Amino acid sequence: MRAEILAVGSELLLGQILNTNAKFISEQLAILGIDVYYQTVIGDNEKRLYDSLNLASQRSDIVILTGGLGPTKDDLTKETVAKLFQTKLVYDKNALFSIEQYFIKRKMKMTENNKKQALILEGAEVLVNRNGMAPGMLFKKDKKMIILLPGPPKEMEPMFVKELVPLLEKMLLNRGKITSRVLRFFNIGESALETRLETLIDNQTNPTIAPLAGNGEVTLRLTVKHEDDGEAIRLLDATEKEIQAIVGDYFYGYDQTSLMKQVVQQLKMEKWTISCAESLTGGMFASELTSFSGVSEIFSGGTVAYSTKEKEKQLQVSKEVIKQDGVVSESCAKEMALGAKKLYESDIAISFTGVAGPDKQEGKDPGTVYISIVGKSGIANGYTLSLHGSRNAIRDRAVKYGCYYLLNEMKRWKSSNDIF
Amino acid sequence: MRAEILAVGSELLLGQILNTNAKFISEQLAILGIDVYYQTVIGDNEKRLYDSLNLASQRSDIVILTGGLGPTKDDLTKETVAKLFQTKLVYDKNALFSIEQYFIKRKMKMTENNKKQALILEGAEVLVNRNGMAPGMLFKKDKKMIILLPGPPKEMEPMFVKELVPLLEKMLLNRGKITSRVLRFFNIGESALETRLETLIDNQTNPTIAPLAGNGEVTLRLTVKHEDDGEAIRLLDATEKEIQAIVGDYFYGYDQTSLMKQVVQQLKMEKWTISCAESLTGGMFASELTSFSGVSEIFSGGTVAYSTKEKEKQLQVSKEVIKQDGVVSESCAKEMALGAKKLYESDIAISFTGVAGPDKQEGKDPGTVYISIVGKSGIANGYTLSLHGSRNAIRDRAVKYGCYYLLNEMKRWKSSNDIF
Repeated sequence: MRAEILAVGSELLLGQILNTNAKFISEQLAILGIDVYYQTVIGDNEKRLYDSLNLASQRSDIVILTGGLGPTKDDLTKETVAKLFQTKLVYDKNALFSIEQYFIKRKMKMTENNKKQALILEGAEVLVNRNGMAPGMLFKKDKKMIILLPGPPKEMEPMFVKELVPLLEKMLLNRGKITSRVLRFFNIGESALETRLETLIDNQTNPTIAPLAGNGEVTLRLTVKHEDDGEAIRLLDATEKEIQAIVGDYFYGYDQTSLMKQVVQQLKMEKWTISCAESLTGGMFASELTSFSGVSEIFSGGTVAYSTKEKEKQLQVSKEVIKQDGVVSESCAKEMALGAKKLYESDIAISFTGVAGPDKQEGKDPGTVYISIVGKSGIANGYTLSLHGSRNAIRDRAVKYGCYYLLNEMKRWKSSNDIF
Repeated sequence: MRAEILAVGSELLLGQILNTNAKFISEQLAILGIDVYYQTVIGDNEKRLYDSLNLASQRSDIVILTGGLGPTKDDLTKETVAKLFQTKLVYDKNALFSIEQYFIKRKMKMTENNKKQALILEGAEVLVNRNGMAPGMLFKKDKKMIILLPGPPKEMEPMFVKELVPLLEKMLLNRGKITSRVLRFFNIGESALETRLETLIDNQTNPTIAPLAGNGEVTLRLTVKHEDDGEAIRLLDATEKEIQAIVGDYFYGYDQTSLMKQVVQQLKMEKWTISCAESLTGGMFASELTSFSGVSEIFSGGTVAYSTKEKEKQLQVSKEVIKQDGVVSESCAKEMALGAKKLYESDIAISFTGVAGPDKQEGKDPGTVYISIVGKSGIANGYTLSLHGSRNAIRDRAVKYGCYYLLNEMKRWKSSNDIF
């Protein structure tokens, strides 16, 4: 099954926004085992939309459109689909009701053009929009499947996961059943991972093993074809066991998790509290941590000690360390972590100091990063990194490494009860 | 002149990376006044690349390809262009030399396949790659212009700006000259802005006025056609003046700026220092602020006081306020801002408290946000918001509103010297 994605919106062609929808949908379809052959962006222009849709529906089985479902004259997506497939647009009562509710809830007056959003392609399955007004649609004609989704990611993403995926999965049962599992690795490059698993990858047919790299991580996607769920899982388990024996040191989680998500899960599970002291990351660690709900039980707080003065004042970094080693040093990182642990009275503290760039600092190159972690033992461990890339890539990688080291330390603490 | 962008790379179709190149190039071309009609992503597949390139070069004047210039068998871009336009690939001596230097500098052994990167389309102008090995190319044939750029953004972006833009500008002088200006607005919706400017937008022909919304902001793009630079700017100024008279209260900056960028610029200009106290935003304000280089001169530091205890301990929020109004309150926000200002001895402090969700807190709905700002006067101003969306959308919007209020307060302080 071939799919392609058509994103509609002049703001994309003007470079005002990133097409995060295409990435999200591609990633989700990859998980479902559906191949994406093209991603296309077109403006709010009827002729070009018609031509692109026509081409897409000739060469692919599934065409997913994002955007152009809104109330204004610019929004042409469903009108164009209706025209190409010679189908009527009809009002959906439920959609109309929830659009009215949307305005009532917000105590706003509904203008007439908003009703347009309740028009759907006759015969289409409606995908409920719980985060906005325009409903999505799954429309089938001439053995083609046309899926229409709203443009704003905060509407599209939950609709995709909660409304569309179950529908697609139901349909996928008609063909060979596929079960997959993604293993996530950090601190090892794609080629290094591939080299170490070469024999296994080459000889393995069911499940297949596909390595992928991105965002400074490597993932392995195991895909098994088997009608029986239990047998599928046994096959996946067996292959995973072989992989873990070779590169298990770099493994950190399954499927759609992230390093920070794993950190949050572990902390919640162990009921350990954490605090942080940040210099070059400037609050990024705390911000990512608090992007998860319910972290108040494990996160005490954090200090962004950006200046030398604040490192001394808030975190009690000693004058000797600053004089001898500078603020870009392992000893400063350690004292920052110890300072945060004391200040926030947490079980664990993590600190980040370094050079985000673009200029050198204290004679050290951009990308020089020191991370320190202290647990209940009160002994701070230090980690040194030399990262490459832009200022924000360096900050982002530093936070990822911080999470990775935290996961490793927590694993160690759990296996040696005397420390924690 | 019509342009389109073809990004080549299976990792894009797998959703592993975002197509930031398409956004960057579209943005740059918009500045040059070149319209982008399509963005397409194709995998590392010769046939589909050939077909897409064929279609693109039929319907557009300029086709910009990114990716597929590397040393491996997967990299097919220039080979496919050569095939379609029946052109030879020849070694470029300078490119070959700099590839060899690349390896010498890094003390690495050069493998034979790296030489492939020095092959260029016969007759093409070479775009030097100062951040990687594969050179870019500008190739003209049959009145079409085909531009080949490397895939990694850190190679592509500087090549685009430093090598390609001067070449394109030279060519563009031959046609009608376009000058444009983007005005950015916050705290007003797209339809509200459009309604208030309706007569102006409808009657205005040179410059034209195009409204666009995205990321919770609205922009107006003014585009003027005039051969004379001075006259073009006078026309833009006159139209902008009319717009500012109607919706100037919501205006915050020009072109590629952002709310936080404006905050940083203003602080640097006035040499004012800032600190922050964050609860629901959890470090996001500090993290965004420190994403800009050189902020150490204006940013003292910040405290993420996530728990009630830390609000009391670090920021000296009083027990009375917590008991009477709770931590999700205007009075708590004010005390947090005052506490941060005192703790960090900064000129200005900003605080954020509220309910990020998904659950209610202290009986208040997700999206309830209190922001407070205190300047030299020592009097804290409070702002209350009811935001909608996911946990992270609420946090993100809260930070944007914080920046917007900061800009307004700074404007006020500057115009009334007695306060600051």
